[in-house]
Amino acid sequence: MAKHELEDIFNPRSIAVVGASEKRGMSGRQFFEGLIEYGYQGDVYPVNPNHSEILGRKAYADITDIPGTVDYVISSIPAPYVLDLVECCSQKGVKAIHFFTARFSETGRPEAAQLERELLKTTRQKGIRIIGPNCMGMYHPSKGISFSDALPKESGSAGLISQSGQIAEELSRYAALRGVYFNKAVSYGNALDFNECDFLDYFAQDPDISIILMYIEGIKDGDKFFKKLQRAARVKPVVIMKGGRGKSGSRAVASHTASMAGSLEIIEGLIRQAGAVSTSSLEELIDIAACFYHLPPITGFRVGVGGGGGGASVLSADQCEEAGLDVIPLPDEIKNKLREKGSSIWDWIGNPVDMSIRDRADFMPGHVLELMAVDPHFDLLIAIIDKPILAVLPDKAMGADNYDHWSWKTLCEMRTLLLKQGIPFFPTIKRAAVAAYKAAEYCALKDRK
Amino acid sequence: MAKHELEDIFNPRSIAVVGASEKRGMSGRQFFEGLIEYGYQGDVYPVNPNHSEILGRKAYADITDIPGTVDYVISSIPAPYVLDLVECCSQKGVKAIHFFTARFSETGRPEAAQLERELLKTTRQKGIRIIGPNCMGMYHPSKGISFSDALPKESGSAGLISQSGQIAEELSRYAALRGVYFNKAVSYGNALDFNECDFLDYFAQDPDISIILMYIEGIKDGDKFFKKLQRAARVKPVVIMKGGRGKSGSRAVASHTASMAGSLEIIEGLIRQAGAVSTSSLEELIDIAACFYHLPPITGFRVGVGGGGGGASVLSADQCEEAGLDVIPLPDEIKNKLREKGSSIWDWIGNPVDMSIRDRADFMPGHVLELMAVDPHFDLLIAIIDKPILAVLPDKAMGADNYDHWSWKTLCEMRTLLLKQGIPFFPTIKRAAVAAYKAAEYCALKDRK
Repeated sequence: MAKHELEDIFNPRSIAVVGASEKRGMSGRQFFEGLIEYGYQGDVYPVNPNHSEILGRKAYADITDIPGTVDYVISSIPAPYVLDLVECCSQKGVKAIHFFTARFSETGRPEAAQLERELLKTTRQKGIRIIGPNCMGMYHPSKGISFSDALPKESGSAGLISQSGQIAEELSRYAALRGVYFNKAVSYGNALDFNECDFLDYFAQDPDISIILMYIEGIKDGDKFFKKLQRAARVKPVVIMKGGRGKSGSRAVASHTASMAGSLEIIEGLIRQAGAVSTSSLEELIDIAACFYHLPPITGFRVGVGGGGGGASVLSADQCEEAGLDVIPLPDEIKNKLREKGSSIWDWIGNPVDMSIRDRADFMPGHVLELMAVDPHFDLLIAIIDKPILAVLPDKAMGADNYDHWSWKTLCEMRTLLLKQGIPFFPTIKRAAVAAYKAAEYCALKDRK
Repeated sequence: MAKHELEDIFNPRSIAVVGASEKRGMSGRQFFEGLIEYGYQGDVYPVNPNHSEILGRKAYADITDIPGTVDYVISSIPAPYVLDLVECCSQKGVKAIHFFTARFSETGRPEAAQLERELLKTTRQKGIRIIGPNCMGMYHPSKGISFSDALPKESGSAGLISQSGQIAEELSRYAALRGVYFNKAVSYGNALDFNECDFLDYFAQDPDISIILMYIEGIKDGDKFFKKLQRAARVKPVVIMKGGRGKSGSRAVASHTASMAGSLEIIEGLIRQAGAVSTSSLEELIDIAACFYHLPPITGFRVGVGGGGGGASVLSADQCEEAGLDVIPLPDEIKNKLREKGSSIWDWIGNPVDMSIRDRADFMPGHVLELMAVDPHFDLLIAIIDKPILAVLPDKAMGADNYDHWSWKTLCEMRTLLLKQGIPFFPTIKRAAVAAYKAAEYCALKDRK
């Protein structure tokens, strides 16, 4: 297979940060420091005519002054200077520029949109590729590339394609807390050159990536996107959150990444039709990612549930069913086994298993879960071990008085323990159920194709 | 107005715990200890023929041995002994019995259902009222009555009517963490005598209760419930979560509280028709409660949103709109004021306010929120002060490594600070939006009546 054109861009041998700075809170410092902090192994060059040295490294007045080759440039200078920068980059033989630089078409102003069009035309003429503008660019932790010091240094097997930099950062951080780590992520803003199709295509064929998450505000070419998505979803799960879903969201999308939000119905239909998974909140996106990342494929919808007392059992049943899962009655085989073992509650206990129904001290409802785990009627369990299991650990909002409460520490320790065993956890049954259903649906659709 | 028949029952002058025990983990200890720990001011009598003393208090072999009067009895003895207990209670002049005692009709066994019918018949003959059976009974913190040591000692102005004891406990604890405290709560299980209508009627006329929350699994009499609910909802908000919503949940309801779940569509229609608020998860129930508890009435649906960068603005807009709120464009009046004040982004900034769009250091997007707060176009804000405000403080699941992270402590401190100012907080925009919409809808419906 031919090397994907983004492969070299995600693995640059040298990077120049134009507009690098020592000033705290400035993007020019953030990008430059990120490369140093995260241990980028190639050459890093700060470019700023007003400094001879930045954070202890020699600074260059112009990109053409840099002695070595420069593969990749991060532009953190204001919009009016970008055409000059492209000219210098062309002289230097730069392959790609990430424009953090913003205030182009997203401002809604004609002159800014005109400058953006010129930027594209000029870079095309010079053979330079663009990520952005108006974005955070690449995160590739195994190569020491990070756009924020808040991102995990640990690499994983997920890939993230996000039009928004803020959402890329949020997702990377919060996914890590659920045990999901990214191999590569990209924030691509206005998608002037490389767009969602290119990144999807690249991640689909990247053997280091096992699941692709996307946050998209607009789609440049629906037909092309559908084909790329269909091909990707056949190989690995693709979970997509579409931003700009309604009238006001579409307005916000225009002033954020200058995207045309498009019809939500058409885009969601396209996602489902292509065999990908659609979601409408970041929490759900992470929940579904946690399922795919940690669990073997969920090959059906029949769920066994065990966890709480009577009230929790009722709500578990409701919420699993409302999510689309099939909460089957406790199979006769299991009831008979319970009777044979001398249980006095064999006829009363059901699925969900009400843990408050006590039997003999040597035979508790937990045993029913063990029987469910080996019974062929169930495709997944929301509780203990062996089938794909989703653990529900309540994560209720705490007040200040509670932050150092022992129970919080215990909860955190249990989460870590679960993740070590490859069991994803969820704060509520509802979120576990919705995520499990969507993961099972992906498998079902894939098998039909 | 005549005193409600439940008034004396919720304010007993003396309580006997039958089946009291010193054994940890037993309900007989839990109920007895609860009364002592929470500072119940009346007389408390442990009853157990096998002990002369329990937790330092003289124990009685039989309820008839108690020297003083006994208003209220908590029964923590097995089902086969309940008829004998009723006979003794009758001799003693007991007014009401809370039967924690379970294993009646909820087991699905004919002989257990028969015993339950006899229990009702006998108590009716003797003029003794029943809470339960198969429930946790009363929580009335200002009187020192609590069924669990996990419940807050602090009293508030909410009332909770929950068929499930576990859910009553969960709601009481987690509502407190959102600054919502209960004046009275009751778990009433199989609703053999007092049922949802009685408690609703009582709480509706109770001046100490400003909002009523309900978790119900079945409704005994639809017409009566509708009338009581309509009357209550005219006086104060009633927020209802119905358990047993689908096929499997209805099965679980039968084995939990022996209730007929009924048609979800009919019940939800009835709730809306009566002007009450319906919800389908405990999280949402608490979210809506937090709105009503902390905020003035939300008198319309037009929301101003400010909070994050561009991506968050897009999602905020979508989620508010999907919840039913009206995310109106930024009014011209505000845009003109921004221009007058010399803002360079007056034409670009919108609602939601993208906080990542920077202007002069002396004029930030936060100023737009201040303008929104006084602009008559907006009915509520999801962010700062003056209109009903809902604060969104992310509450992402943390791993063990993070439990003592400084940011967690800061988050908890901010929550406490917000609550002190009467601003409810929510973990996501979505949850804030859904809760705000339902609170506004309650007001709108109420005004129409």
